[in-house]
Amino acid sequence: MNKLLIVGTVAFDAIETPFGKTDKILGGSAPYIGLSASQFHVQSAIVSVVGGDFPKAYLELFQAHHINTSAIEIIAEEKTFFWSGRYHKNMNARDTITTDLNVLTKFNPIVPDAFKDASVVVLGNLAPANQANVISQLTNPKALIILDTMNFWMDNSLNELLEVIKCVDIITINDEEARQLTGENSLVVAARKIYEMGPKFVVIKKGEHGALLFNEDRVFSTPALPLEMVFDPTGAGDTFAGGFSGHLTKTNDFSFENMKRALIYGSAMASFCVEEFGPEGLLNIEESALAIRLQAFKKLTQFEL
Amino acid sequence: MNKLLIVGTVAFDAIETPFGKTDKILGGSAPYIGLSASQFHVQSAIVSVVGGDFPKAYLELFQAHHINTSAIEIIAEEKTFFWSGRYHKNMNARDTITTDLNVLTKFNPIVPDAFKDASVVVLGNLAPANQANVISQLTNPKALIILDTMNFWMDNSLNELLEVIKCVDIITINDEEARQLTGENSLVVAARKIYEMGPKFVVIKKGEHGALLFNEDRVFSTPALPLEMVFDPTGAGDTFAGGFSGHLTKTNDFSFENMKRALIYGSAMASFCVEEFGPEGLLNIEESALAIRLQAFKKLTQFEL
Repeated sequence: MNKLLIVGTVAFDAIETPFGKTDKILGGSAPYIGLSASQFHVQSAIVSVVGGDFPKAYLELFQAHHINTSAIEIIAEEKTFFWSGRYHKNMNARDTITTDLNVLTKFNPIVPDAFKDASVVVLGNLAPANQANVISQLTNPKALIILDTMNFWMDNSLNELLEVIKCVDIITINDEEARQLTGENSLVVAARKIYEMGPKFVVIKKGEHGALLFNEDRVFSTPALPLEMVFDPTGAGDTFAGGFSGHLTKTNDFSFENMKRALIYGSAMASFCVEEFGPEGLLNIEESALAIRLQAFKKLTQFEL
Repeated sequence: MNKLLIVGTVAFDAIETPFGKTDKILGGSAPYIGLSASQFHVQSAIVSVVGGDFPKAYLELFQAHHINTSAIEIIAEEKTFFWSGRYHKNMNARDTITTDLNVLTKFNPIVPDAFKDASVVVLGNLAPANQANVISQLTNPKALIILDTMNFWMDNSLNELLEVIKCVDIITINDEEARQLTGENSLVVAARKIYEMGPKFVVIKKGEHGALLFNEDRVFSTPALPLEMVFDPTGAGDTFAGGFSGHLTKTNDFSFENMKRALIYGSAMASFCVEEFGPEGLLNIEESALAIRLQAFKKLTQFEL
């Protein structure tokens, strides 16, 4: 079985949307990526760090989804990373209320021996220095390395980020962040500039408008599934990355054609994520429910001239 | 040959984008719709009004594109409708600098006898009272009536607009305007509410993010073609409506499957429009260039699971 290595945050999130409010629930990039990828029956591991306050039940939840948790370091005397935010009425923007990095400031990622030769590696949104540290521990020269990042690191660690971007095969990035990183308004030009920074594939995430996949000379577009109700967009981008990387890990085929399918799988997983608070929507997805959504993407996009 | 009737504004536009600035050039909804539809070799007519200052050369331009201009009333002592605007740096928003309605306040649309039985009618963005007036002159009970509108009429003539919406087969509307009209954030729910107002098909235009087509129980999505350079977005929505209605007029097939194709044709035409100032990009499109863009839409969206 092919192995997927995930590095990212494991956090508590408190979320407020126009539809409701949560106490501290499971959050962070790694749980969304891992739970989403688990739908594809891959062998995965999360590299992260939590505090003594992190419930054992969450670790067991990961394990129940075949996610190796041995590299989630627990620093007993520290608290888990905490984020809280409030979505605007239209759900397209949110305000961050609290960011308590806590244990994250002491994060020193150690890749477990069994996953140093992973075939796919997802560097979830995290300090570029941590992402680079993980890359340096990998032993499989053919590993497909997928980087996710965000504007915070462009603002605060641009040089380190650019160094990491040089070393990865795929980057996933929001449209506004792609524009910020390149200073280009056209996503076509922005994608080409990012391509020239190193990655062979550039995935631009556009939230409710879907995603674009670029390589040197091709482009593929997928819409997001139009939904009656977006209940909570938190984690949708990470869930997308989880479905995308889960499919690539399972199939071990890194061609453009297969990456198109991975984009659809990622988008389908994201559609489940946003229907419930936090990662709740990812926990019990029947194979048949996923198959129905994939067919919905077909119907939504396929045409004959 | 099937006939397409277009009612809309014919105007002078002065446009400023980050890439340049025009003097008064040909603008208004009807020219974009008509020039775009002319690509599909349909017999069309524009119903509109201009002032004595409107150049004969523009009327000849329409005629050269097989657009009947007999119902473009010329009020010699009045001036043509004038709009000027400036696009923001990201091209996604614009400020209106001037709106001189001029002759438009005296508009009394008269449908030419030869076009009262048109098979497709496009009610371009215009006062709902004018749109209703045109509907009352139609004689073909099977005519497919397509309505375009915008937030200005929701703000100022909502009741009249709702009456027109009741009487049309298709509405094309921007995403933000669909949300305004229904008070719903989800475009799925907004489309259903608009469907319940009367139209059998709802087309939601999302600018650089493409368009969605809804009927009672189906939905189809097309992206906009990702372009290196959007030079001037003015008229893109009308150009889309022109390609959409041109294809439907030519084929006389109003099924959902054919309407999907019409959405692609409209999007392809819009991609030509935005590459140059005003309607310039629509004037000399080779069949082969259109065919190449249609194939680009295929490549951009088609996948196998």
